[in-house]
Amino acid sequence: MKEFHDLADFQTGQIDALLELAGRLETNPEPQALAGKVLALLFLSPSLRTLASFQAAMTRLGGGSFVISPNMSIHGLETRSGIVMDGMAAEHIREAVPVIASYGDAIGIRAFAERESLEDDLADKQFNELRELCDIPKINMESAINHPCQSLADWKTMNDLNIPQQGGKFVLSWAYHPRALPLAVPSATVHMAAMRGMDVTVLRPEGFELPEAVMHKAKQAAATSGGSISETADRAAALEGAHIIYAKSWSSTRHYGDNPADEELRHGLEDWCIDEPWFATAQENARFMHCLPVRRGVVVADRILDGPRSVVIQEARNRMYAQMAVLHQMLRN
Amino acid sequence: MKEFHDLADFQTGQIDALLELAGRLETNPEPQALAGKVLALLFLSPSLRTLASFQAAMTRLGGGSFVISPNMSIHGLETRSGIVMDGMAAEHIREAVPVIASYGDAIGIRAFAERESLEDDLADKQFNELRELCDIPKINMESAINHPCQSLADWKTMNDLNIPQQGGKFVLSWAYHPRALPLAVPSATVHMAAMRGMDVTVLRPEGFELPEAVMHKAKQAAATSGGSISETADRAAALEGAHIIYAKSWSSTRHYGDNPADEELRHGLEDWCIDEPWFATAQENARFMHCLPVRRGVVVADRILDGPRSVVIQEARNRMYAQMAVLHQMLRN
Amino acid sequence: MKEFHDLADFQTGQIDALLELAGRLETNPEPQALAGKVLALLFLSPSLRTLASFQAAMTRLGGGSFVISPNMSIHGLETRSGIVMDGMAAEHIREAVPVIASYGDAIGIRAFAERESLEDDLADKQFNELRELCDIPKINMESAINHPCQSLADWKTMNDLNIPQQGGKFVLSWAYHPRALPLAVPSATVHMAAMRGMDVTVLRPEGFELPEAVMHKAKQAAATSGGSISETADRAAALEGAHIIYAKSWSSTRHYGDNPADEELRHGLEDWCIDEPWFATAQENARFMHCLPVRRGVVVADRILDGPRSVVIQEARNRMYAQMAVLHQMLRN
Repeated sequence: MKEFHDLADFQTGQIDALLELAGRLETNPEPQALAGKVLALLFLSPSLRTLASFQAAMTRLGGGSFVISPNMSIHGLETRSGIVMDGMAAEHIREAVPVIASYGDAIGIRAFAERESLEDDLADKQFNELRELCDIPKINMESAINHPCQSLADWKTMNDLNIPQQGGKFVLSWAYHPRALPLAVPSATVHMAAMRGMDVTVLRPEGFELPEAVMHKAKQAAATSGGSISETADRAAALEGAHIIYAKSWSSTRHYGDNPADEELRHGLEDWCIDEPWFATAQENARFMHCLPVRRGVVVADRILDGPRSVVIQEARNRMYAQMAVLHQMLRN
Repeated sequence: MKEFHDLADFQTGQIDALLELAGRLETNPEPQALAGKVLALLFLSPSLRTLASFQAAMTRLGGGSFVISPNMSIHGLETRSGIVMDGMAAEHIREAVPVIASYGDAIGIRAFAERESLEDDLADKQFNELRELCDIPKINMESAINHPCQSLADWKTMNDLNIPQQGGKFVLSWAYHPRALPLAVPSATVHMAAMRGMDVTVLRPEGFELPEAVMHKAKQAAATSGGSISETADRAAALEGAHIIYAKSWSSTRHYGDNPADEELRHGLEDWCIDEPWFATAQENARFMHCLPVRRGVVVADRILDGPRSVVIQEARNRMYAQMAVLHQMLRN
Repeated sequence: MKEFHDLADFQTGQIDALLELAGRLETNPEPQALAGKVLALLFLSPSLRTLASFQAAMTRLGGGSFVISPNMSIHGLETRSGIVMDGMAAEHIREAVPVIASYGDAIGIRAFAERESLEDDLADKQFNELRELCDIPKINMESAINHPCQSLADWKTMNDLNIPQQGGKFVLSWAYHPRALPLAVPSATVHMAAMRGMDVTVLRPEGFELPEAVMHKAKQAAATSGGSISETADRAAALEGAHIIYAKSWSSTRHYGDNPADEELRHGLEDWCIDEPWFATAQENARFMHCLPVRRGVVVADRILDGPRSVVIQEARNRMYAQMAVLHQMLRN
């Protein structure tokens, strides 16, 4: 494996093999598998789970990692092309990234959406510029429009819980949040659930439709897997029979990058806070999923997070095992 | 060992076994003992020695660690219960701590005293809330009222120096400091020395008495070990015949959490700076101990720190070996 | 090897052996060589390459490292001697450095020039004070006047590229930069190239002469190696026949530590930006070298950095292999 950038780059059988490997590493440690191997971790955006789980993953496989964030360079990193660097930044990303990559056997990169142009973010412009600067195996640790490590962990979590693939109903629900958030997780999640063969419903208020390109990609995955995909603002219809309610807030796509318009649109949507009534017509033991971090009392009620429906800690823990499988396939001799 | 939270949870024989193991690991490295094992390090308060010594300890045993501090999460961590998180904090400690723990085989937690309520700090309220969020082996890396890693290292340091247990005279002396400091180290230290069987004197100005609960716990340890414990403001009486002068500043317990009143009380106590005259009637080769960091010229004179009495570097180094023993007992298969 | 502080402390044959070891570790990994060994990394100045390459180096050899910078201690570190520490700093470097060293099998230290006194910086006053506080093997990770890890990596890079030793022409060229930078890299570089047996020319504007002590040391190395050393402001003469143009900005030595005077002197020197015309009379496949970070469009033109002449990424990558060789010689049982 030379790259782990998008689940869409893999066949379902390859994902199954990765998840089988993840399960095996969970029960049968291999503390020498990656002895002497180095993972470079480049964070252009903040992190807690990803930072911790990748470091732990490399240690469990007998290797190691190092962490770089822009504030470690003198006065930060310049990213613009063709610029005369007579300002504050003393280093350009065109040197910094290849150098960092030169110390690793693989590199993980995180760079959140800039949320200025929807087109650029859908094309993962910034992330792809970074990718092109590295000639070693690469892992997407969350880009503008993707988060394959989260999706692989979520897939494993549903397998662990015996959530059905064919006939399983997966609801990705928009939730209220005071700030406009990226599209990476909803885009990756809707595709993952479709690829897993599930019947996927995107539930969101008007103005928060997922981009056409995202829906199109998920539909293609559903067509191959035998799943289905639909989008609605009708909460009652969406939630009926759900096996999974996966909550996530995201920015308005109608006003992408326009924070005041986005804020005006989300004003009054505070009741999009997932609570027990949302589960009234769902499957009896329907589960609540979220990628974390999550705002209590805003995105979801405390009693859901603290109750038996929530599997958010399992999802986070599975980040480590999913990533161990990826690293094992990438770096094992 | 499922938890290393308080020396009082152990029998003296168990401490002896830990220190024997620490000594063995110092002379006979075991670089594969914890291969593939991960220690999560959660610092809610700053650190230098603890940060470095735990990372080094895991490396020396063939495992690894990762470090998390609140500023790594987006906009910090919320700690209040039942709150609607519509402010800055994007993550609650009720998710963050279990997630961090889920990546480790053990977790070390540091959370200094809040110094608002003496009762809460004596009960280690905040730390115990954090403990309850983790279902893996836990290490107290300094809480409001305890610092067992420091105490275990100090015990080893006295053993290394052949300081007598029975009949050894241990003086814990308050020292001047411009700021009001927590009770964790004095509380842990007085208990440790009593448990070691020593004759312990707490020397402090009026208003800086150790809390009754702390003295009571130390007295119980002394009753079992054959040691003794007393408290005085009489410097001459306290220091006579001392084998150890252990310096530490702490906040006024009379005005706990009231910084202006504390400041007024410590005003004029600048002569509580340990210097050579303090050793005039002590044992000839009496030693100076301190947990570090220490303010030169304020807590202790340069000539003491730079002279042969000081064993502060040995104490700090023994942090690593003491912690290696704890980790070895916790995590070795 | 007890110390890696200055290439001048070694015979050419010893450097050859280090570089042979570096090359061997590049092609034949030894992931158990330093199992259980710990490298302490103390950064009193910022870092990216050094931080990443030393961590990666230890992992590749099966050991580990930890990183300390002053902001990790409470309110920073005091460095002045004999001071009464009643201000912000809660810890003195006289405790912090020995403690940090006590957790490592070796220590790397970085402390940039203070640029207040040329005499002090030439004598590496601050760095030598830090060195004296450690009783374990030490590595200079860049001091006021030296950067032996960079020099060893640069030597390896020239070997890898088959740049001639005897008869190879090495031009160290000053370059424009908006700020006054330390003398460490130019001083180390000119000595390294001379020790390698090359014909070294220092090309710089008036007022930016390298200090007499630096030139004298390089001349001694040249006398032993059969190389030569000269200094000039004549660009045309300097660049003719060059195998290497090594760019670096440094502060005016005429106005050392006087930033306004330095700024006035460098005003108008913006054309000291290395570009293709600089290579017109050089060897056909002459190479461009720089230690990084480098300001694009200021120190060197984009087309040089992005073109085939530039070997800056190779230099950075060789930092890791050079340092692995040093660590292997220092710490291998």
